[in-house]
Amino acid sequence: MDIGIVGLGRMGMNIAGRLLGAGHRVVAWNRTHSKVEEIVTQGAIPCERLVDLKTLLPVPRIVWIMLPAGNPTEQIVNSLAEILEPGDMIIDGGNTNYQDDLRRSRSLNTQQIAYVDIGVSGGIWGRKLGFCLMVGGNPSDFETLMPILDDLAAQDGYMFCGDHGAGHFVKMIHNGIEYGMMQAYAEGFNLLEHSPYGPTLDYQALSHLWNQGSVIRSWLLELAEQGFADDPKLTKVRAFVQDSGEGKWAIQHALASSTPAPVLTMALMERFRSREENSFADRLLATLRNRFGGHAVFPADSEK
Amino acid sequence: MDIGIVGLGRMGMNIAGRLLGAGHRVVAWNRTHSKVEEIVTQGAIPCERLVDLKTLLPVPRIVWIMLPAGNPTEQIVNSLAEILEPGDMIIDGGNTNYQDDLRRSRSLNTQQIAYVDIGVSGGIWGRKLGFCLMVGGNPSDFETLMPILDDLAAQDGYMFCGDHGAGHFVKMIHNGIEYGMMQAYAEGFNLLEHSPYGPTLDYQALSHLWNQGSVIRSWLLELAEQGFADDPKLTKVRAFVQDSGEGKWAIQHALASSTPAPVLTMALMERFRSREENSFADRLLATLRNRFGGHAVFPADSEK
Amino acid sequence: MDIGIVGLGRMGMNIAGRLLGAGHRVVAWNRTHSKVEEIVTQGAIPCERLVDLKTLLPVPRIVWIMLPAGNPTEQIVNSLAEILEPGDMIIDGGNTNYQDDLRRSRSLNTQQIAYVDIGVSGGIWGRKLGFCLMVGGNPSDFETLMPILDDLAAQDGYMFCGDHGAGHFVKMIHNGIEYGMMQAYAEGFNLLEHSPYGPTLDYQALSHLWNQGSVIRSWLLELAEQGFADDPKLTKVRAFVQDSGEGKWAIQHALASSTPAPVLTMALMERFRSREENSFADRLLATLRNRFGGHAVFPADSEK
Amino acid sequence: MDIGIVGLGRMGMNIAGRLLGAGHRVVAWNRTHSKVEEIVTQGAIPCERLVDLKTLLPVPRIVWIMLPAGNPTEQIVNSLAEILEPGDMIIDGGNTNYQDDLRRSRSLNTQQIAYVDIGVSGGIWGRKLGFCLMVGGNPSDFETLMPILDDLAAQDGYMFCGDHGAGHFVKMIHNGIEYGMMQAYAEGFNLLEHSPYGPTLDYQALSHLWNQGSVIRSWLLELAEQGFADDPKLTKVRAFVQDSGEGKWAIQHALASSTPAPVLTMALMERFRSREENSFADRLLATLRNRFGGHAVFPADSEK
Repeated sequence: MDIGIVGLGRMGMNIAGRLLGAGHRVVAWNRTHSKVEEIVTQGAIPCERLVDLKTLLPVPRIVWIMLPAGNPTEQIVNSLAEILEPGDMIIDGGNTNYQDDLRRSRSLNTQQIAYVDIGVSGGIWGRKLGFCLMVGGNPSDFETLMPILDDLAAQDGYMFCGDHGAGHFVKMIHNGIEYGMMQAYAEGFNLLEHSPYGPTLDYQALSHLWNQGSVIRSWLLELAEQGFADDPKLTKVRAFVQDSGEGKWAIQHALASSTPAPVLTMALMERFRSREENSFADRLLATLRNRFGGHAVFPADSEK
Repeated sequence: MDIGIVGLGRMGMNIAGRLLGAGHRVVAWNRTHSKVEEIVTQGAIPCERLVDLKTLLPVPRIVWIMLPAGNPTEQIVNSLAEILEPGDMIIDGGNTNYQDDLRRSRSLNTQQIAYVDIGVSGGIWGRKLGFCLMVGGNPSDFETLMPILDDLAAQDGYMFCGDHGAGHFVKMIHNGIEYGMMQAYAEGFNLLEHSPYGPTLDYQALSHLWNQGSVIRSWLLELAEQGFADDPKLTKVRAFVQDSGEGKWAIQHALASSTPAPVLTMALMERFRSREENSFADRLLATLRNRFGGHAVFPADSEK
Repeated sequence: MDIGIVGLGRMGMNIAGRLLGAGHRVVAWNRTHSKVEEIVTQGAIPCERLVDLKTLLPVPRIVWIMLPAGNPTEQIVNSLAEILEPGDMIIDGGNTNYQDDLRRSRSLNTQQIAYVDIGVSGGIWGRKLGFCLMVGGNPSDFETLMPILDDLAAQDGYMFCGDHGAGHFVKMIHNGIEYGMMQAYAEGFNLLEHSPYGPTLDYQALSHLWNQGSVIRSWLLELAEQGFADDPKLTKVRAFVQDSGEGKWAIQHALASSTPAPVLTMALMERFRSREENSFADRLLATLRNRFGGHAVFPADSEK
Repeated sequence: MDIGIVGLGRMGMNIAGRLLGAGHRVVAWNRTHSKVEEIVTQGAIPCERLVDLKTLLPVPRIVWIMLPAGNPTEQIVNSLAEILEPGDMIIDGGNTNYQDDLRRSRSLNTQQIAYVDIGVSGGIWGRKLGFCLMVGGNPSDFETLMPILDDLAAQDGYMFCGDHGAGHFVKMIHNGIEYGMMQAYAEGFNLLEHSPYGPTLDYQALSHLWNQGSVIRSWLLELAEQGFADDPKLTKVRAFVQDSGEGKWAIQHALASSTPAPVLTMALMERFRSREENSFADRLLATLRNRFGGHAVFPADSEK
């Protein structure tokens, strides 16, 4: 099929590359043109100005946006809404909040432009192994996209999840689960490290072991094994953990729907904690302990 | 090799069966003798009285105990300490607290009886796929056991984890992680269920999808897929979740070592919560809300 | 001073009554007029139509809205924006989200109508003991209101918290803390109840005791004492705990500002949990346990 | 009455002093004798060797131990068991685990020595305001002690909580609640600090305000006010929070009794977190994010 790819970051580049490898005709645009030249070497058609997508793609046009969620994606959706024509289709494959999908799909619908939201998992491994794709929108648009999804995804790796927003909603929950699982492993290895057995345990070997028939075997644990192989006690990396939007949005959905999600929430908040230096909360606790019990308080400039 | 198996519950039976299948000579004892007769049909040597292990096994004797942790295992260890002789070896493959291992290994050492603790994961699937075995004790005893471990475990599925107690300690942490992962999935699917997309989502298909190239793919998710296949909305099962000792002990270790483990702890406490009816805590909250804000309180016999 | 009170629910009635008791001239409006007649018996001037506030109040007019947050308050703010004139002042004393204050203050500012947000704590006890008032807006508007705040508040019981939104923001955090404290007491008494000492402990006496010189003495604990006095084992009330907006918004602020707030969040989620019947999450956990370990699952219709 | 006080740390000194002030005859012993000399200036009878308590106290003797829980207390209990005679009474007023009380009371009972456990709250303020005393043991022993409790406690500030261990058990739960409440305040002020209103908020004034008629008024909040008065932004103190045994034991009881206590537990674990530098858990999370998503990892020596 013919498809336009807008946004050639790490993920967009891998998607474009995988589609080219499967024989699709990819027209590629990126703000920084050097990225376009890179994918052209893999067979893509270069698109200099966004508006050129109109002529470079056959009708009905299909354009896949793969940009950071929020403003960058929003601006391109708006631009494409002016460039494209009734019958064309916009796909947002980024990490967009599903509520933006609801709004956009309604708005584009008035122009008879189809809108499909696709949650993409698989990270940097997707190019090689195939991605895991969660699709939201109209069923007929989903069917239109099948030839592309077949090649982009891992075996059995795509699914129609429901109406507009469903793809990104399901991806958002996926990331919430991801945070919880990662934190479960992190706490487990931390407990080992804080034990008499920690100093002599080979965490790479243990990660490998646990992936052989144990109940907790998983792909994340395979990644842990690789990580420990490179850095057995993780001394090269700082204890500073970022988060993207989706983990937060999953918790916002928990709040909005009054659904308990203690583990997913704590997983997120531990990331916040990792980035908090000289916590005001902790300083108040230390102050209160001193006030009621005369417990020693450590001066701000003391060594821990 | 020759090995005595003491305890033919679900796990002991599978271990004995797998060892017999691999050509080992298994002498089997169980309190209820009918279980012994069952494994004899697979080739085991029956052992009528525990004391008969002494004559039925060649010197040095190796006896694997596979019983519920706590008293049942403790009693057998004590009995075997009287039956066995210097040079013999006792293996505890149950879900024993590692602190019991420390005590027992010291005590048996005075009799020159070796003690090895093995954490066993893999559940009811281990017979077919091989178990995941975490071994603690003396390195030389571990080496002695290798021919058995090779056949019992999945490929690469056993490891020497350290000194006495290390096997059960690592297994304990494994189970803590297991609780956290399970709770992460449970909360994720619950959030889906509490969303507008829930009613039309096919959770079996989604579990299958997420196992194709996504970041959260795992064996537990494969089990979820099977579960949803049998019971798509889980209407056949009660919202009542039990826990075994190991998840609790992992948290006790967190407390003892002052290690934060919020996700593993919340996972455990959500299980407690699932078993609490008519929570006293919640009734106090409702009472307090009424007291300060005049907020309505629902009478005890009202419908939710 | 002269003041209009719009909204005569539990809180509005108490505020109007306390102001009348202090000699202020209160013009009262309520959608259901019977409430107006009730406060007229305490000396209020009745206001039949909202628009009559314009003539019944001297210039510059001050109108205090005390309505449920969200639409009910929003509609009245909009109506008053049409009725009032430059130089007049609108106070929102309800449990409004501070972000609404930001928007409204900007919008009303273009009409030169002042907007003040006041967070009100003290519940149904405020009429007698005086309220605790957290004020946001322009400092000069705060000064204008001082004669009213002096009489409405407990001794020292009001404060200028900052720019527009600060009053409701500080009140929102106050409620977050309130949830955390209530949950701390609830869990503590629950732990007593789940102990061998529970059956013979007199919780009313214990609440009273803990308020005599202990570190955890507080007003909430005084309310607990009253609650236990009426219902020693809380058998009259259902384990079902509602929440208002502010506790949620406090957590949303935690998410938005990437601030860890595990205790405030868990306190909120325990309330969600109290309202969840037949948890889907728990049913998935039970299903998974059965799948990997062969652990018994209780049929949906079994007794706990 | 006549009473021996063993242990003249901060708490023992205050207890002895308050009893002396009320006219009781206090015989005081301490390992470091200078402390004894200090209390002698307030009227205490000095006791040079522990064994001298036998002659310096009238029969039946009452000895109050006020020492760190664990070994220091245990050793003195054992020594007193040898020194004292049938009919005498030992009181443990320290922060002892209630399970030690159960053991000791049984053991001392065989010698007909009474054992009473008393949980003491009020911190360094107890000397002036009176303590809050939670008493466990035999009701008749409790009655014997009433003249002492009357003077030691705040008005209404003591209570018979139940059989042996009940005093320390109730105190343990009290401390668990204390952790939860402190953490609730700490998180609340931290959320303020992480908001646009934080820089201009006067936390001393706000603590004072919240103590005037608000729902969250409490003694701990009065202490917060004092703390902010001395150090408005808490810049003098380190974000390092210790914990004593009782908060941990409360959570251990939650585990042992399968009672959910998420808030009390998270409050404890946040203290653990405050003491963890360069968290291994966080480093694993950062490593995993890098592995699956190519997300940037900060080198160990980089600035946050």
